[in-house]
Amino acid sequence: MERVEQLLAEMSLDEKLAQLVGVWLNVNREEGVVAPLQDAMQGEDVEFEAFARHGLGHVTRHYGTRPVDPEWASTALAARQRWLRDHTRLGIPALAHEECLTGLAAWRATTYPVPPAWGASFDPELVERMGARIGADMRALGVHQGLAPVLDVIRDQRWGRVEECISEDPYEVATIGAAYVRGVQSTGVIATLKHFVGYSNSRAGRNLAPVHAGAREVADTLLFPFEVAVKDARAGSVMNSYAEIDGIPVAADPYYLTRVLRDEWGFEGTVVADYFAVAFLHTLHAVASGAEDAAVQALTAGIDVELPTGVAYLEPLKQAVTEGRIDEALVDRALRRVLLQKAQLGLLDDGYEPEPSGPVDLDDPDSRDLARRLAEESIVLLTNGGVLPLGDAAGRTVAVIGPNADDVTALFGCYSFVNHVLPHFPEVESGIAAPTLLDALREEFPGATIQVERGTGVDDGDRTGIAAAARLAAESDLAILVLGDRSGLFGRGTSGEGCDAETLDLPGAQQELVDAVIATGTPTVVVLMTGRAYAVPGLLRDAAAVVQAYFPGEEGAGAVARVLSGAVNPSGRLPMSMPRSTAGQPYSYLHPRLGAASSVSNIDPAPALSFGHGLSYTSFAYEDLTADGTAGTAGSIRCSVVVRNTGERAGAEVVQVYASDKVASVTRPVAQLVGYARVELAPGESAKVAFDVPVRLLAFTGRDGRRVVEPGEIGLSVRRSVAEPIAETSVELTGPLYEVTGSERRLTTVSVEPGKEL
Amino acid sequence: MERVEQLLAEMSLDEKLAQLVGVWLNVNREEGVVAPLQDAMQGEDVEFEAFARHGLGHVTRHYGTRPVDPEWASTALAARQRWLRDHTRLGIPALAHEECLTGLAAWRATTYPVPPAWGASFDPELVERMGARIGADMRALGVHQGLAPVLDVIRDQRWGRVEECISEDPYEVATIGAAYVRGVQSTGVIATLKHFVGYSNSRAGRNLAPVHAGAREVADTLLFPFEVAVKDARAGSVMNSYAEIDGIPVAADPYYLTRVLRDEWGFEGTVVADYFAVAFLHTLHAVASGAEDAAVQALTAGIDVELPTGVAYLEPLKQAVTEGRIDEALVDRALRRVLLQKAQLGLLDDGYEPEPSGPVDLDDPDSRDLARRLAEESIVLLTNGGVLPLGDAAGRTVAVIGPNADDVTALFGCYSFVNHVLPHFPEVESGIAAPTLLDALREEFPGATIQVERGTGVDDGDRTGIAAAARLAAESDLAILVLGDRSGLFGRGTSGEGCDAETLDLPGAQQELVDAVIATGTPTVVVLMTGRAYAVPGLLRDAAAVVQAYFPGEEGAGAVARVLSGAVNPSGRLPMSMPRSTAGQPYSYLHPRLGAASSVSNIDPAPALSFGHGLSYTSFAYEDLTADGTAGTAGSIRCSVVVRNTGERAGAEVVQVYASDKVASVTRPVAQLVGYARVELAPGESAKVAFDVPVRLLAFTGRDGRRVVEPGEIGLSVRRSVAEPIAETSVELTGPLYEVTGSERRLTTVSVEPGKEL
Repeated sequence: MERVEQLLAEMSLDEKLAQLVGVWLNVNREEGVVAPLQDAMQGEDVEFEAFARHGLGHVTRHYGTRPVDPEWASTALAARQRWLRDHTRLGIPALAHEECLTGLAAWRATTYPVPPAWGASFDPELVERMGARIGADMRALGVHQGLAPVLDVIRDQRWGRVEECISEDPYEVATIGAAYVRGVQSTGVIATLKHFVGYSNSRAGRNLAPVHAGAREVADTLLFPFEVAVKDARAGSVMNSYAEIDGIPVAADPYYLTRVLRDEWGFEGTVVADYFAVAFLHTLHAVASGAEDAAVQALTAGIDVELPTGVAYLEPLKQAVTEGRIDEALVDRALRRVLLQKAQLGLLDDGYEPEPSGPVDLDDPDSRDLARRLAEESIVLLTNGGVLPLGDAAGRTVAVIGPNADDVTALFGCYSFVNHVLPHFPEVESGIAAPTLLDALREEFPGATIQVERGTGVDDGDRTGIAAAARLAAESDLAILVLGDRSGLFGRGTSGEGCDAETLDLPGAQQELVDAVIATGTPTVVVLMTGRAYAVPGLLRDAAAVVQAYFPGEEGAGAVARVLSGAVNPSGRLPMSMPRSTAGQPYSYLHPRLGAASSVSNIDPAPALSFGHGLSYTSFAYEDLTADGTAGTAGSIRCSVVVRNTGERAGAEVVQVYASDKVASVTRPVAQLVGYARVELAPGESAKVAFDVPVRLLAFTGRDGRRVVEPGEIGLSVRRSVAEPIAETSVELTGPLYEVTGSERRLTTVSVEPGKEL
Repeated sequence: MERVEQLLAEMSLDEKLAQLVGVWLNVNREEGVVAPLQDAMQGEDVEFEAFARHGLGHVTRHYGTRPVDPEWASTALAARQRWLRDHTRLGIPALAHEECLTGLAAWRATTYPVPPAWGASFDPELVERMGARIGADMRALGVHQGLAPVLDVIRDQRWGRVEECISEDPYEVATIGAAYVRGVQSTGVIATLKHFVGYSNSRAGRNLAPVHAGAREVADTLLFPFEVAVKDARAGSVMNSYAEIDGIPVAADPYYLTRVLRDEWGFEGTVVADYFAVAFLHTLHAVASGAEDAAVQALTAGIDVELPTGVAYLEPLKQAVTEGRIDEALVDRALRRVLLQKAQLGLLDDGYEPEPSGPVDLDDPDSRDLARRLAEESIVLLTNGGVLPLGDAAGRTVAVIGPNADDVTALFGCYSFVNHVLPHFPEVESGIAAPTLLDALREEFPGATIQVERGTGVDDGDRTGIAAAARLAAESDLAILVLGDRSGLFGRGTSGEGCDAETLDLPGAQQELVDAVIATGTPTVVVLMTGRAYAVPGLLRDAAAVVQAYFPGEEGAGAVARVLSGAVNPSGRLPMSMPRSTAGQPYSYLHPRLGAASSVSNIDPAPALSFGHGLSYTSFAYEDLTADGTAGTAGSIRCSVVVRNTGERAGAEVVQVYASDKVASVTRPVAQLVGYARVELAPGESAKVAFDVPVRLLAFTGRDGRRVVEPGEIGLSVRRSVAEPIAETSVELTGPLYEVTGSERRLTTVSVEPGKEL
């Protein structure tokens, strides 16, 4: 702190502002954009030494902009840091940040499953270990901050960025997201919570469309994961959402960026701008008259660092300060946070010496093993008429059909290096070993005769191959149809940033391919590698089995193959409802009663498959749901249930506890997840799973705007999915109306006690 | 007032509560429901004298529940009133209310075009005259209050009740809606504004789904028409919306029902409950623990009268009062409003004598003429490749095809008596003369050879008649395809209350019929009789001409036929955008910049045809847009433009003036309608149209929640539709930030000065 204050006292305005911006080098505009409106905003190419002559806040995506050899690039980054140390007056190094959602977005680095797969695993511990591996990769390369996780709560399946989100449920987003943060930050690297707040709630699911949400919806649903990640996981950085909520762009809103985040939650890290978000206050939102006004509003609201570079926080902000249109104390406020973070990272230490990584393996066996485990736990068996598991399929003929069967890019999300950056470098190889599902099936079923027809592309609408695919299916004992999305950016995919959906039918001619193959009568297993939940009720009804794999990462193909064979018993559960049709969007299971089907509309918004759904090759039974009959409004509810593996195979059950507030002063969700536990059980084995649910989870924004817990009756239930209640009990909340203070425990504690085998 | 206070002082609690409820007689549940959840809520049939022994607030839908002879029913109503006068202690007659959206919803009464047609006419004066006719019908029958107009602003085309709304633009809703109110109330009958507020904004366009809207959106867009109808048109009654907005049901929200409506706007009439809305606080919203709690919350919030009957305001409210859980002063507050209204209606006068109507014609020639004129003005010519007008079509063969060509119900909306009540009485004739479009075409084109094929039903998906229809088209000189909706209630139609749309494709197999007919190469004119704007970009591209007629009422078929022949020059303009696909919903042209197409989403939400669009058989040119260069923030902007009929036929142009706030402290619509004028011009004739636009129309809810006008630059433009700017000028708003007080002029004044003929 002393060093920070000392520096601050001797800095010129130029030197101060230089710490509040980044620089993005090596961007070749001809290779296509990777950030919104990058083309328009990026400006002229810059020369590092000139740009950084007064110092530099951030280095933007040093590894994540082009495919560069990590070791070489690490040497280059260290040289830059050394230059800053030696050739700027104050010698302050820059903070290097990278994208890292599904692993460090750099060439040759492990690429993990996408966030919906984390959600499907319901395994925060494993996600935390993944975060730690990702953090370790960044740390090794001299990267200080990762721009993940995405804590947006899924609201509309049409949105292309659903694939970057963990879940439709804020409690799940909070617990899994906080685990990711703890993992990354355990390595000394800063995690960045995004997009704070509201981004997922855009009109009609269009990326960056206005958010039409009330203050209560934002407070009770969208803010919660951020609160947990700030308070419980101590996240070091937050990135603003581009969104405007009910007319106010978040980047200009001190209510969220300062009052909620800092005054209420006690956040002490940095708020960084989503790329170009400060300037967007002028150019997109028209709430600022120019770059200077945008800078003044953003800095005042609480954006500390402008990324990816200094469009507004350099010359325009300097002008505002020197001409007295903003108090320099606001510059110092942001600067103090930046310097404090640099101090905590050791960047201000005497004798700081940037070290290149040396030879580095960003995709070592441990990481790959983790990617494999997470993929295995995340695969959701949606339906199974009995065809699965396949066993070794020896002697059988298997038709493998579909656009995603033999395409490595189908394994990855849009923030993977493969799908984010490499499309601009078609001559460069992917840099990581990633078998396609076809490869994996051949390895998993060596005794089967596997033949292949693509049928159609993801979205090319090409019907010319459908007949051949159907012929192959007709001649085979089994068809495996591998369908889904192509993840990409800004219209280059069917899922991903800027790739929103007109309808929730499968893209292109894939549904026709499904119809043709299923019509052959050959038992058909469908594997969905998608970034969102499609409306495929016919497929769910007619296929012999359906598996939802999202984008399962570099080890995901093997995981899917092993689920099909039975080597892995599927245990994933849907982190988002699968709709029946496009008509119901936006949809969330967390709707109040009016959100359900009723006699006053012909439209039934109920999904085809509900949040939490997922089958297994074994069966589970529940016994002995117990719960406290009463609990204080400021207290907690203890409950427990015994779950038993009643089948013949080992397997994992995700025990789900839901609460419902029977009568409240504002409308409340018909059910909300308040606890879950992934429990591995051998055949016949049972476990008593006990939850201690803080009543605070039932808090909401009351009519007067205070966040409260009301006394009254709560229904507490164990459910197989939100639509399949197994047992329900009632808890009376007693005592006075309790106003949430922020110091309570926010998360449910879980204990699993092995039971006696039968 | 004295009489009211005197009565109030001597009333027992039972007598007080009796004045706060209605009774709904002659409802036969086996005939099907006409109100939401009517089955569950209605309870046992009641006997009038027993129910009304302490008096009675309202008689619910005496004429509108079953087909009854008006004269006979009027005698029965008078007898009821006489009974109340003579056999209750205080002798207070009841207030009789009826539905009257498209004319009095009673057997044999004139049925006018639906509200989107009023919007399309852009002719408030004509709508006011229609309101006066509707009021006169009610007055003649002893009806005191009509449950119209609907002032909900259209937000999502999937919603079934779009057909009950006037426009997507709040300024248009306000001006047309206020005209309707003035018309009805000019006869001494009370108009009822509904649904206050938010109802049209339900999630995913599902009827009665939760409203996810921010407070600013509600205040700046949805409240405005109600404000104008209260303040400018002095509406006597307001009906609450069933909606919950951001978690708070409006029926329990004193903010809207009392603070905004009464404290801010000075409303002094009654707030009546939408049918069963009080009890719904318990049964649907679960914000009340039972009927008593529901009654307490609703009365406290500001619902004065429970309709259609007394589920909550009789026994349950009595219990709450007698046991001290609500102050009786709140009962008196509501009662005072009810009695005051009865006093104003003369019901409390000494010597009050209920008079039966005697012989009555509810569909006289004047009314029919008005229905015809409104229909003619409301028909929108969407596209025309030159095939229209047809002239007399003598000697030509014309194929008339489609499910709505020869169906009288296709002329009417869901709140017409024909479509609302008569479906439950299939043996009863419609009671009004209403030629179908086929009838009208035969009359309009006596020299043409007209042949008919239905092709398919509205939504039966029957494809068996498509081939025959295509054959007929192929053999004909011209095809007229008459497509659209069937309006009905609760799933019995494709449009109307409870008939929401999965997609915005034409219902059933109609698109296939279109494709087959157009493929013949025969020039095809499409007439859309719909309750919403469908996404039919292919049809707009391929048909020889397309006409949008909404549901044009009992004289509508002739109006359409005359537009086709050219006897009427079309002058309607779209009151709602016609989308390109379902994907963009919800959509409003009043979006901020982020609501437009951009490079950050592949989805282009721009409509196929924009708000304000409509063609004519003549052409118009604009000259000399002038406007004040500056205006005070509390002042007004004068502007004018000269419009000239440059074609060969007389016609009407709807001159449209839009404003756009270039930079504001919150995001503002890219354009908003601030004035319009329907101008009839002979060939060569010109007119100077001058607008005096109160700057107050540009007010919005600022970041601090105050409603303000900010200084700064405003773009002012004349446009042919919102997407077709003709000329734009800039106005500088000067002076301090102005906080709206409520006493300013709210509406633009227009003057039309004939110009010299060329």
